[in-house]
Parts: sequence; C-alpha cells; structure tokens
Amino acid sequence: MDLDELRPDADRLWNGIEELSGFTEPDHDGWTRRVLGEPYLESRGWVAAQMAGAGLQVHTDAAGNTIGVLAGTEGKASIGTGSHTDTVARGGRFDGIVGTLGAIEVALRLRETGTRLRDDLVVIDFLGEEPNEFGTSCIGSRALTGAVSPDFFDRTNDDGRTLGDRLQVAGFPPDGMLGLRWPAAPLRGFVELHIEQGPVLERTGTELGVVTAIAGIERVVASFLGRADHAGTAAMTDRKDALAAAAQAILTVEQIGCSGENSVATVGTVHVEPGALNVVPSLARLWAEMRSPSPDWLGTARRELMDRFAAIAAERGIEVDLRRLTDQDPVPTAHSVQDLIADTSDDLGYSWRSIPSGAGHDAAHLAAIAPAGMIFVPSRAGRSHCPEEWTDREDIARGAHALAATLVRMDGLALERDPR
Amino acid sequence: MDLDELRPDADRLWNGIEELSGFTEPDHDGWTRRVLGEPYLESRGWVAAQMAGAGLQVHTDAAGNTIGVLAGTEGKASIGTGSHTDTVARGGRFDGIVGTLGAIEVALRLRETGTRLRDDLVVIDFLGEEPNEFGTSCIGSRALTGAVSPDFFDRTNDDGRTLGDRLQVAGFPPDGMLGLRWPAAPLRGFVELHIEQGPVLERTGTELGVVTAIAGIERVVASFLGRADHAGTAAMTDRKDALAAAAQAILTVEQIGCSGENSVATVGTVHVEPGALNVVPSLARLWAEMRSPSPDWLGTARRELMDRFAAIAAERGIEVDLRRLTDQDPVPTAHSVQDLIADTSDDLGYSWRSIPSGAGHDAAHLAAIAPAGMIFVPSRAGRSHCPEEWTDREDIARGAHALAATLVRMDGLALERDPR
Repeated sequence: MDLDELRPDADRLWNGIEELSGFTEPDHDGWTRRVLGEPYLESRGWVAAQMAGAGLQVHTDAAGNTIGVLAGTEGKASIGTGSHTDTVARGGRFDGIVGTLGAIEVALRLRETGTRLRDDLVVIDFLGEEPNEFGTSCIGSRALTGAVSPDFFDRTNDDGRTLGDRLQVAGFPPDGMLGLRWPAAPLRGFVELHIEQGPVLERTGTELGVVTAIAGIERVVASFLGRADHAGTAAMTDRKDALAAAAQAILTVEQIGCSGENSVATVGTVHVEPGALNVVPSLARLWAEMRSPSPDWLGTARRELMDRFAAIAAERGIEVDLRRLTDQDPVPTAHSVQDLIADTSDDLGYSWRSIPSGAGHDAAHLAAIAPAGMIFVPSRAGRSHCPEEWTDREDIARGAHALAATLVRMDGLALERDPR
Repeated sequence: MDLDELRPDADRLWNGIEELSGFTEPDHDGWTRRVLGEPYLESRGWVAAQMAGAGLQVHTDAAGNTIGVLAGTEGKASIGTGSHTDTVARGGRFDGIVGTLGAIEVALRLRETGTRLRDDLVVIDFLGEEPNEFGTSCIGSRALTGAVSPDFFDRTNDDGRTLGDRLQVAGFPPDGMLGLRWPAAPLRGFVELHIEQGPVLERTGTELGVVTAIAGIERVVASFLGRADHAGTAAMTDRKDALAAAAQAILTVEQIGCSGENSVATVGTVHVEPGALNVVPSLARLWAEMRSPSPDWLGTARRELMDRFAAIAAERGIEVDLRRLTDQDPVPTAHSVQDLIADTSDDLGYSWRSIPSGAGHDAAHLAAIAPAGMIFVPSRAGRSHCPEEWTDREDIARGAHALAATLVRMDGLALERDPR
C-alpha cells in the first residue's frame, strides 16, 4: 500500500493533545494529572471516547488499562501500541500523551483509508506509568504482563496506606490484577511512540529516534535517623543531625551519577521531620534513583551508594535505614522491531538515529511478552517533566506516521525475538 | 518573711503540667500544641481558669496574651512573670509550660501564705512563643512590648496566607495588637522561669541557672531555583539541580555553626519542588538559623552564609533568592535581676551558676521595657523540643520556689537598669 496515505491529520492530533491537557489538578503550575487523582480518572473517559470514535471496541481491564481493539480480518495474532496519559506533578502535555493519542490517530487513519489489517490492532492507554507516591510506576503495563506479585500491593505511601487499598477504592481490586492476560490474540509485537525527553534528536537535527534500549532503574529510599534537639541549645558537637547526613548523601548521589556513560543518578526529594525552624532534624528521608542502559554500572552504583550512605551515618553516629524500591533491569528493544522502524522511516523519507532511552516506559514491560520497540520524536531543549516540555506539531505528526506505517508492516509478519 | 513558706506544692504543680499536656494535636508523636491550633486555643481557657483559681484577675489582651493580675496594696508599680504554653510540633511538656504554671503556683502560694505584695503581680501566658509557619516567633511578647510594626503582619506561610489574616480569624486583629501597652502599673522588673533545654546544669550537678544573656538569632530563608528536568534523560552535566545546591548549603551552615563559641547554626527543614522521584528538583528552599550571645559573631556568620550560598548558586549556574527573616539581637539580662536571683538562691540554699541561653525567650522582649532576668532548671540530657524533654518534679519545684522568693524580694525594690 501507499504508506503516504497513512499520514496523520496533524491538526486533529494536536487538538486532541490540547483538549486532554484541560484535565489537570488545580493549584499547580504546568500540567498535573497524577494516577488515581480525580482529573486523571475523568480524563480516561475522554480517552475511551476518542478510542470509540476511531472505531475501536473499548473496555477497561482489571488493572485500569483503557483498551481499544480493532478486529483484524484473520485475528490469529495481534499487534499492540499505546502509552500512558498520567503525568508527574507540574509536568507537561506530551510525555505519554503523544503515544496514546498517536495510536488512536493511527486507528482513525486506518479506518479513513479503508485499510484492513489481518491482525487485531490493540491500542492501550496504560494505567499510571509515572512514579507514584507508593514508590513504583508502570502499574498498568506491569499488571498486564504478569509482572506483579501479591506483595506489589503492600507498598505504602507516606500516610501508611497501601497501594492495594488505594487501587481497591479506585475500583481495581488487586485480585483481579493478578489474573490479567493480554486482551486479544497472541501478541506479535509492540511499538510505542514517545517524546525523547532528552536533547539528542534536536541537537543532531534528526527527525526520529529508534530506541535501542530502555535504561534500567535502581531506586533506593534512605531514612537517616538522628535525634531531635533544640537548635539553640544543643552544641554542634552533641548533635545527631539527620538532615546534614542527608545533605552529604545527596552530594554522593550526584557524584555517582557522574561516574558512568549514559548514566544518571538523582535525588528527587527529601522529607524532613520534625521540620521546624528551631529543631535539629531527627529524620531525613530521601529517594535516590540511578539509571543506566548498563546492568553492570547499575549494580556497582547501587552497592556504592548503599555503602557510602552507611559510612555517612556511621561517621555521624546515627542510623540509616536503606530500602530498595522497584528495580528494573535495562531492557534492550527487539532488533527485529528496531529494523522494522528504521527501514520504514527510510521509506517514508524521515531521518532517524539509534538512541537509548534514559527514561522508563511501558514498552519495557511489554518486551517481556513480545518483541517490542519504540519511536522517539524530538523534545525541545530536551526538557521534560516540566511545564516547558514541548514537541512541535510536525514532529508529532512524523512520529505518528512512522508508527502507522510500522504497524501496517508488522501486520501478519513473523518477528524474530532476540535470544535472551 | 520566711522564704521557706513560699515553697510550692510540687505535686500540684506537676499535676498541672500533666493536665495541660492533654491538650495536644492528634496524629503526632510527643506533644504538639502549635500557636492558633485548635488544642492550643482550647488549652488557654484551661490556663485562664488556673489563673482565676489562684485569685488573679484574668483577661486576654489584644495580642492573645492571657494575663492574670494580683493587685498590690500600693499598686504604684508592677512586677511581671510568666512564659508560654505553645509547643513545637512533636515537642515536650516542659518548655514554656514550667514558667507559666510555675508563675501561677507562685500566686497560689502568695494567697495561701497570706502574703500581700505592694506592687501588682502580673502573670502572663504569652501567645505563640515558638517559631511558627510565618517565620516568626514570640508573637505575644513582641506585641506587648511594642516591638511589632504593621509589616510584621504581612509575613506569609507556604500557602501565601498572611500572619495578619490568620490572627484576624483567630480573633486578634492586627490593629488592636499595634496599640498594646503593659497592662498594669509601670513594670519594675520581669523574671521568667524556664527549663535550660541544654545539658550544662545536669552535667555540672547544679540546681538552678541564672541566665546572663539570651542568644541572638539570625534566620535566613534561601530558595535555590534550578530547572526541572526528567531524571532519566537529562545528562548530569546539563542539569540545574536545586536540591544538590541546597545540600551544599546545608553542609555550609553546619560548618559555620562550628566556628564560634557558644554559637550554633542549623537548617531545620528543606522544601523541594516538584518533589517527584524522577524529576530533577527545580526548587529547594531551606530555612537556616544562627544563634549566638555574640553580636559580632552573628553578623559575620550571616554575611558569610549569604556569600557562600550565592557562590554555590553561581557555580551551578542557578539562581538563589536570599531573604532575612526576623533577626533578634543577643539580649543580656539585667545585672540587678541576675544578682537578685543569685542572692535569693543562696539564701534558699540552692546551688546555681551563671549560664547563657541558646534559645530565645519571651523575656528577651520584656527586657526592652524593664530589667529582666531568667531562672533555668535542669533538662535531662539537655534534650528539648522533642518528646524526651524532661525535668524532674523536684527541680521544677526548686525553680518555682526561687521564682516566688525573687519576686517577693523584687516587690517595692528600685531595680537598676543596665546602661545601654
């Protein structure tokens, strides 16, 4: 077929992104649509309506994933695409959203061009991809790929509430999530369109990124336990200041992040108790994460971090409690899918380059059940997870075009899985 | 008169402390009765009833101070005592409370022994001595001594609410507070009983402390303004990490605190935005304070802190906004009052030593309008502003006894003011 026919309606896609951004938690700069928050739950009805409008059969699964299926003429296998629509606090309008609405645009274009696929096309808006208050992420794609065990739901937020309880109240009981399966015929392959969230495509003037691997993540929560003392009367030498220890730890994480290629390490926040101006802090809890496409670097970095945190605490005569949160191994994408995206991009006349993903993605979980790949579009100045996050309309349209053409070519194709 | 007759009822005083500790905000370890909170406002009715029960004429002034007056036989002058009953979050049962209930016990003993003073005795429970969310402290004693100007009420909390608005809602309109005066005949002198909140008396086996000076305080709030970036995709070298800058600043404050005799410096808390696991922090705001009895050290330390914070920000290519909060000069107590307390303690047979106060106190504000002094009682292990804060029943009784005897001796006495 003429792949050019699949070119999306760039304005329609753009307008959808605009419309979805209207669902946002009040009282924040930027856009905030956190998992299980009111605006997020409302927005998913809007997403489901978009899917239905594109001719997809829509349902919500037990993990809260919104799923639209376009039955194929043969239906012996399925091909999957999609992303997420939740955001971090004070985030942007493109992260995840481009891949979800881009996938719906693909379905619309297939219908408008009268293109019938042999395989079922499955479009998914995965529940809660962004890190949440329970110290995990990718809830929907983990559940859908069987990657959660019962203790996953025992994670607690700062108020001591469990993730399981929170999901139950939202209408997604953990029991149902444990029994999930892929919602259509066997999955042939999965492709996710996403913004790069980094500066490489823009800096190199490249239109598309073919993702080679999704960085692994190690997260550690460290609670330094000192002693509360009056900040006016406790001599400096008598103190057990938990926040001063955490400050050393934050700078240690920064040093570790600078020690590896394509690797980073970050402390995103710190919680202090009692948190009064005139009390030496008794507790400082920080969340550190390390990311790298290299499993070796990740393992070494995590051990170094934990050793150095313990040494900081020991020097100050205080305690430190170290807990490993979800870790995620680096996930290489399937070479077969990389090749398909790259060849298709060549045929469409789009420039592309191979690129690793520093961010985690739903596709990393889908890779456990089928050959999976990702298409990146440029992010202005590499900014993401902030109000300034931006991708041009034409860049988004090129990405959705490449996604449509890749999926059409994947239809009926026996993709090779890489040896593991 | 026989000063021994004024010995307080140690159990009655202790039971009052116990009873008052029942007014506490739920869901906190320790004791929490923060200024203008519900339990605090309720507890002040209890305090007023204790004052009335001791034969004092009770009223609440325009600044929310609860005041009990025992008219003297001559009433040409007044003598003052009292402290505060608010606490920090997760605080203790003794800080401020010992001085307030100790003063009421003095009034009770005067009545029970038939002791009539010539001067009016004024017992005050000052509103909100502890640092509050508006970045100030000692609201009641500042207002009562004419130390607030209209812009004092413009201070805001994290929600952008002004102190003036909060006080208005609580029933204490700023206008009324600006017109306050000492509520009785001219003030002859003021004595505050308080726990030491430090380890010196206990370590040296001394029963009472005669306070020589109240440390000055400099508070600075520093907002490091970096840039939010995706923590997986922003290269370490491209980042403008506000929290990493704040971590350097926290360690700088600790170093500065170690640079002076009897001086300390503390960062009590840090606020991070957006505060997500996977976003490089765009804002980190910290509250630093320095305390010293030396005005020279304080001035030098504040300048050094601000210079070094600016240098940290400049090195990282980020911004820092530095704002000075309430500063309070070191306040020497009156030599005449120190001598009176010391001589009285000798006569009562209590051991005492001269000691500076690292903490701020209402007495520091009273010193602006009359000769003022303080009596300290020991704090176990020097702990304060925490649930472990503790002073023995007999230590409290000795302190209240010395307070009663000192006030009786101050009655009708022309105290010298130190030259300024």
